[in-house]
Amino acid sequence: MNFKKEINQFKIKIDNDITTVYENGPKNINEPINYILSGGKRIRPILTYLSYASVNKNMDISPNLINVCLSIELLHNFTLIHDDIMDSDDLRHGKKTIHKKWNDSIAILSGDAMLSIALVNLDKIDVDNKQNIVSKFHDALVKVCEGQALDIMYQDKNNISVEEYINMVDKKTGYMIGLSAELGALLANCDIDISDNLKRYGQLLGRGFQIQDDLLEIVSNSQKMGKSLDSDFILNKKTYLYLKAIEKNENKVNEIRSIASEDNKLGFKLLKEFMYQENIISDAEFYVKNLLNEANEILAQININPNKLLDYSKMILERRN
Amino acid sequence: MNFKKEINQFKIKIDNDITTVYENGPKNINEPINYILSGGKRIRPILTYLSYASVNKNMDISPNLINVCLSIELLHNFTLIHDDIMDSDDLRHGKKTIHKKWNDSIAILSGDAMLSIALVNLDKIDVDNKQNIVSKFHDALVKVCEGQALDIMYQDKNNISVEEYINMVDKKTGYMIGLSAELGALLANCDIDISDNLKRYGQLLGRGFQIQDDLLEIVSNSQKMGKSLDSDFILNKKTYLYLKAIEKNENKVNEIRSIASEDNKLGFKLLKEFMYQENIISDAEFYVKNLLNEANEILAQININPNKLLDYSKMILERRN
Repeated sequence: MNFKKEINQFKIKIDNDITTVYENGPKNINEPINYILSGGKRIRPILTYLSYASVNKNMDISPNLINVCLSIELLHNFTLIHDDIMDSDDLRHGKKTIHKKWNDSIAILSGDAMLSIALVNLDKIDVDNKQNIVSKFHDALVKVCEGQALDIMYQDKNNISVEEYINMVDKKTGYMIGLSAELGALLANCDIDISDNLKRYGQLLGRGFQIQDDLLEIVSNSQKMGKSLDSDFILNKKTYLYLKAIEKNENKVNEIRSIASEDNKLGFKLLKEFMYQENIISDAEFYVKNLLNEANEILAQININPNKLLDYSKMILERRN
Repeated sequence: MNFKKEINQFKIKIDNDITTVYENGPKNINEPINYILSGGKRIRPILTYLSYASVNKNMDISPNLINVCLSIELLHNFTLIHDDIMDSDDLRHGKKTIHKKWNDSIAILSGDAMLSIALVNLDKIDVDNKQNIVSKFHDALVKVCEGQALDIMYQDKNNISVEEYINMVDKKTGYMIGLSAELGALLANCDIDISDNLKRYGQLLGRGFQIQDDLLEIVSNSQKMGKSLDSDFILNKKTYLYLKAIEKNENKVNEIRSIASEDNKLGFKLLKEFMYQENIISDAEFYVKNLLNEANEILAQININPNKLLDYSKMILERRN
């Protein structure tokens, strides 16, 4: 079976099984939870599956694997719901966000319930190293919250360095993608050295994923990304490219921002032009390419079957939408 | 040592140790987390301690016990932060709520981080039945979210029965207090029959605690309760006494509500008078008294040393503020 077909088949399995994780419960949280769970690319659970496959010779899609994958996808969706409130984002996966379609209270509570379902679902697994897996899940949750805290903090702060930004991204995005790769490996009961390396691989993939996201927000368009593009800019949300633009010419960026406060569309167009002219776009593309190489080098150094993961890094970091 | 002195000593231990659970991390969540953690009566961890003491002959305050107690208090505070946003409450423990002192985003995120810290802290315990304890903690979290979902749902719904209200309270409040008692027993490695009964005891105590809270909101005053009294009424939030009042005379309650929409203070005064006249106050007091008896009967039926728990039920359900 070719790679794309294989991961698509696994995605369909997750899409199906995720409809069964919260079938009952009060309607006012059941509906928004199942509403948001019906969308998404399942990037994280697919990584868990591929990581598992890279160390496990007898590839079986066990209930344990599925439950870990589902919990990771639920954890991810928990962060989406709450982050969308904090960022006042109106669109997600091309649909209205929960706080927009319902209200803030329902969104806060649906996120909380989503997380609690992730945890209860994870308890279903029956493996010797369950305690270790559960505890790594908890640890990742703290890191994700801290990453989001830094993200919010940086919105009101000038002079954020690119380094600080990368540190924030590593926590907010990289850590959970690292967890996804690590748990797949731990489920296959591999050596700790291998699971640690796959975690590191996932973290780099996660960082690259975010920078690629930052890039696509500039070069892509709203329809493609399935979310509104302007809100980040309005909120003064720092991205890799934005910080690089400030490094290049802070006065020019401030000038564009003041234009954007009058005419958002024009401001965005000017920023984009500036980023092309100053090679900020191509530099970011180069940075992502380097991350891809770095991540893949890790795979080459450990005793696994790396092929599917190599295909996956390429797919994630060279994606166009 | 007398009972009050003993639990106060334990409270001081919790008050101290809880200052160390989140000393680092981003300032914008570290500050609100430690701000809210500095207050509270520690009702739940004290119950865990007393439950532990009731089954454990060699009473030692082990790090395992303390960590379970701290995680329970953190779980409780997570719910406070998020519930206060949803209920638009401005005061908690006599101080501004987090969303009021900071903002909604900070409050959402501080709550999330609070929960994650509770989970990571719980992972520190080193006991044979750790997996069971962690999984019961996760289960309780789902129930608490579902209880809050019902609470929100009932705000917009007329004709909530007293039965539906009690079911909501059992989930939102009773389940976590049940968990507090159960985990203390499980930590002492008692028979499952005993821990199940202590859980049931805690659940009844929790239900009684909430009804007593509903009572005190009417008969007490804002300063005493340390939170604003009017918001529940404004929000049309159902309480045990409010639903009993509707059972008695719905027209009268609607009349008072329409007066309250013009003059909140007068509305509250009229409602209070109506509840005294119609014996709604004394009936609620009687209901709490019955719950106290029912809870204490459970203690009499199991092989534990019940004395401290008997003192505690009395203290909780006969409290005046």
